[in-house]
Amino acid sequence: MGEEAKVFGTWASPFSRRVELALRLKGVPSLLLKYNPVYKKVPVLLHNGKPITESLVILEYIEETWKNNPIWPEDPYGKAMARFWAKFIDDKWSPESEREKAMEEACECLKALESALNGNKFYGGHTIGLVDIAANFIGFWLSIVQEATGRELLSAHKFPLLFNWSHDFVNCGIVQECLPPKDKVLAIFKARVAAPSN
Amino acid sequence: MGEEAKVFGTWASPFSRRVELALRLKGVPSLLLKYNPVYKKVPVLLHNGKPITESLVILEYIEETWKNNPIWPEDPYGKAMARFWAKFIDDKWSPESEREKAMEEACECLKALESALNGNKFYGGHTIGLVDIAANFIGFWLSIVQEATGRELLSAHKFPLLFNWSHDFVNCGIVQECLPPKDKVLAIFKARVAAPSN
Repeated sequence: MGEEAKVFGTWASPFSRRVELALRLKGVPSLLLKYNPVYKKVPVLLHNGKPITESLVILEYIEETWKNNPIWPEDPYGKAMARFWAKFIDDKWSPESEREKAMEEACECLKALESALNGNKFYGGHTIGLVDIAANFIGFWLSIVQEATGRELLSAHKFPLLFNWSHDFVNCGIVQECLPPKDKVLAIFKARVAAPSN
Repeated sequence: MGEEAKVFGTWASPFSRRVELALRLKGVPSLLLKYNPVYKKVPVLLHNGKPITESLVILEYIEETWKNNPIWPEDPYGKAMARFWAKFIDDKWSPESEREKAMEEACECLKALESALNGNKFYGGHTIGLVDIAANFIGFWLSIVQEATGRELLSAHKFPLLFNWSHDFVNCGIVQECLPPKDKVLAIFKARVAAPSN
């Protein structure tokens, strides 16, 4: 499958970590490189000298290039549902906004994601798939945002299934290898909360 | 491939027409049905009794279910580029907004799309592909918006390659079968322009 994959990303970004996690699930060795200003966005996957941007587009490329350990369901309808939910997460979710309306929207989003689990451990069923990877910031970053802001969105009481999912997700060995240090991310969010808003 | 495909859509919507065009390129008979309030969004593709929403997600499903006349390039990198541009169009393009900033952004978007043609007749090369289908409202609806508002964005002078593309696109036989009547769409946009803004 050609040369080693290089990922230009930032260590704290959930979008960069999506790409890293997908590559790790495929067993593809990858180098995480610091943001290269040639590319205006992160993450960028550089493979065989060709750059790809947009984390969901990169995940599709990874699935098609390395066929082992499929991240997508096999049937076209299952694939469509996975793509729908991955897009849903990116379109609807705004975790860092403080406005009341955004909080309400975030609650609606979590409600929909709770029901989309359909009684499975992961969105991918028994194993981690596209939607789990796309939801990584709900699994890991959200609890940090909650700690930094003192606002609770995802609790065992309000969304028991999704809460369990987030627990299972962050405790999955391969996921843990692709998460940044919690204390450092928390420090970033606490500093943001303390900064005067504009 | 199972039962006939049904599309719940609205006749004037470019998003519904994307789905219709893709099905027609595949030679799949489809029924365009009026919006069904069971589904909150349009278009919805109903196939074998299962609903799929989001036009780009539906296009992926169509490509995977009916393998003839591929809409995507064959290689993973070409696919990634097509997906990037299709997503780019949906994320960046706001044709109906009147604000100056939106006009500037639309110009930037057209500039990027002009360069993405890479000297080809269509984004799909010699034939219509994913990006051409996704760009249908730039090919057809934009000229109508321009006529209704009196503002010119896409001209032969400013974007010669994209202007030629839009001409080739709307004059393609199979595309013409999937476009709504121009005069009716123009009437809708003229009415919108005349209505007091809120």
